Amino acid sequence: MKKPTKPTSNPELRGPLDHDVRTQIVEAAEEYFSHYGYEKTTVSDLAKAIGFSKAYIYKFFGSKQAIGEVICSGRLGKIMKAVGVATSTAPSASERLRRMFRALVEAGSDLFFHERKLHDLAAAAAGAQWPSVRTYEGQVRQLIEQIIAEGRKSGEFERKTPLDETVNAILLVMHPYVNPLLLQHNLDFAAEATVQLSSLILRSLAP
Amino acid sequence: MKKPTKPTSNPELRGPLDHDVRTQIVEAAEEYFSHYGYEKTTVSDLAKAIGFSKAYIYKFFGSKQAIGEVICSGRLGKIMKAVGVATSTAPSASERLRRMFRALVEAGSDLFFHERKLHDLAAAAAGAQWPSVRTYEGQVRQLIEQIIAEGRKSGEFERKTPLDETVNAILLVMHPYVNPLLLQHNLDFAAEATVQLSSLILRSLAP
Repeated sequence: MKKPTKPTSNPELRGPLDHDVRTQIVEAAEEYFSHYGYEKTTVSDLAKAIGFSKAYIYKFFGSKQAIGEVICSGRLGKIMKAVGVATSTAPSASERLRRMFRALVEAGSDLFFHERKLHDLAAAAAGAQWPSVRTYEGQVRQLIEQIIAEGRKSGEFERKTPLDETVNAILLVMHPYVNPLLLQHNLDFAAEATVQLSSLILRSLAP
Repeated sequence: MKKPTKPTSNPELRGPLDHDVRTQIVEAAEEYFSHYGYEKTTVSDLAKAIGFSKAYIYKFFGSKQAIGEVICSGRLGKIMKAVGVATSTAPSASERLRRMFRALVEAGSDLFFHERKLHDLAAAAAGAQWPSVRTYEGQVRQLIEQIIAEGRKSGEFERKTPLDETVNAILLVMHPYVNPLLLQHNLDFAAEATVQLSSLILRSLAP
């Protein structure tokens, strides 16, 4: 039988409580970064802004990047969710590919550049290939693979080219719009570009 | 009849002499920029390095950018020359397209990033769309147009898609490797990417 303890030191409770503090730090950091930039902010700045000690923050996150990673991972997760919603009702593999590309760019622009600005967090994450970015790129690849396999099965797409080659090349075409580091240079014409590039990709997939 | 004058003030001679000084300034600036960067260098720095007065340099160039433009334009001209050489003997439109893309990336990497480093000049030029960059992009477009027209005529390429749409989309695929601002983020996999992207483009052009 467990020894009764005060709630705050109860091991059963520590998890959830810690979880709350983590969330609190991440949310405050997200707010702070989007105002003052990620690169220029130090953990001391964050600590002051949140009203915690620097040491307390380090209890939860090993570095500023660890906080940035959670934010980045959250945003990238939202992008994939938006892509899921946009593609789920597509009537064909071709249409799914179009919608996927459009949603990737729209959600990516909104979440990193328009709605809440996190330009330099995006640049840092993409430039140094943070784990969250690698995971995201893996998910994008997987989705393309699924769509191509689906289209090959239904007869919409050609089957001569090795699947890997097809998927790689499509990923390369999308890369400048999917990678946040590059997307920021392409924002002005990204919407128009995804339409034209989707058509080109679909022409390349014609049986 | 013309009045005899001293050679240095002879209007007939001023052109060529001026031309030499211009070349001298540009060459010295090219050397200086590739060591110390374009952004950080001032016209005063250049003047000191060359041994001219700042006022004398301003006699020939209205601004630092005007000097940068001449350098940039020279480099871009060399890229187009390399592309011309690489594509001139291609046995088909498909092969010409492949060689064009490869030469654009190879010469671009060498001239701006490897052989002589002018990263930040390239970034400034591409970011602000200097006239030299616009001219270059126009030439690349023209070359793609020629190759597509040639391949359509010979029956190598499909003719259903409006020519403009085809050319635009190909330009978009090549853009991240042709624009020096983006190329610097793609250098690591540019060689491999041009092969895969050329294949995808050619699949999209199949009749």
